[in-house]
Amino acid sequence: MKELTVSAMTKLEIIVEGEHQPFVVDLLNRAGVSGYTVFHNLSGKGTHGMHKGHLMFNDDSVLVMIVSAVPQELVGPIFEGLTPFFNKHMGVVFASDIQVSRMVKAR
Amino acid sequence: MKELTVSAMTKLEIIVEGEHQPFVVDLLNRAGVSGYTVFHNLSGKGTHGMHKGHLMFNDDSVLVMIVSAVPQELVGPIFEGLTPFFNKHMGVVFASDIQVSRMVKAR
Amino acid sequence: MKELTVSAMTKLEIIVEGEHQPFVVDLLNRAGVSGYTVFHNLSGKGTHGMHKGHLMFNDDSVLVMIVSAVPQELVGPIFEGLTPFFNKHMGVVFASDIQVSRMVKAR
Repeated sequence: MKELTVSAMTKLEIIVEGEHQPFVVDLLNRAGVSGYTVFHNLSGKGTHGMHKGHLMFNDDSVLVMIVSAVPQELVGPIFEGLTPFFNKHMGVVFASDIQVSRMVKAR
Repeated sequence: MKELTVSAMTKLEIIVEGEHQPFVVDLLNRAGVSGYTVFHNLSGKGTHGMHKGHLMFNDDSVLVMIVSAVPQELVGPIFEGLTPFFNKHMGVVFASDIQVSRMVKAR
Repeated sequence: MKELTVSAMTKLEIIVEGEHQPFVVDLLNRAGVSGYTVFHNLSGKGTHGMHKGHLMFNDDSVLVMIVSAVPQELVGPIFEGLTPFFNKHMGVVFASDIQVSRMVKAR
């Protein structure tokens, strides 16, 4: 029997056009991320947050959101890996503090 | 080549019945929000958080969640705009602190 | 006419295989949670956060995410209720601070 406890992590929510899901998943794997969850068939428009930030989504884009909880030290490398991608493609990343469940051996 | 950095924003997650998506999107546009992402075909039940807060979702409602990252100063006006709506319709809003990716010119 | 204000709550995002949605919803109900929203047809792989934490999702699992905003004092009991489940089944829980909209009587 293990106990359910929590660890402090950073939640990354990466929203891109559906065709780019394999690129993002591959990047996460190469960064050493151990898991992710994908939300399919999202829609959207415009830019999140900053008006002159990212390229724009069109109304008819089919988007996915790839969510992963990662150790803080992986956030920088993942952002670096995404930089060339976001120079060419639409998308946005949300980063937030989160507690993630973790099973540990009961004492 | 631009660099990927982050800005502190407020993430709004607005959950309403699907038929009211156009109202919420229009409200966000009028408040000056530059973009949003929509999650479709959610289900749910009851009220989030407070027992006597909002009207209740029924088990068979088809819901959407409209997510947008907005500057802190827009949260108040958006809540004001949603007040008459929530006096008549079901729904909930989550607000949280978030870091949003932003492309800036590399120095 | 009521006013839209916010209350500080804990947002729980519980990701499990779709067949286990009824168990999680029942657990939330028994813990006194007043509402939840369900995201369907997610996919995913591996573990979130910790390499040796939870059992692994397979690439072909169909997942759901059950989201609920709960008072802080319910987080412990819900985690206790989920412990036997996570000793047998795959899944992850994210917990984060959130402001939840609430309708109150205007003064």
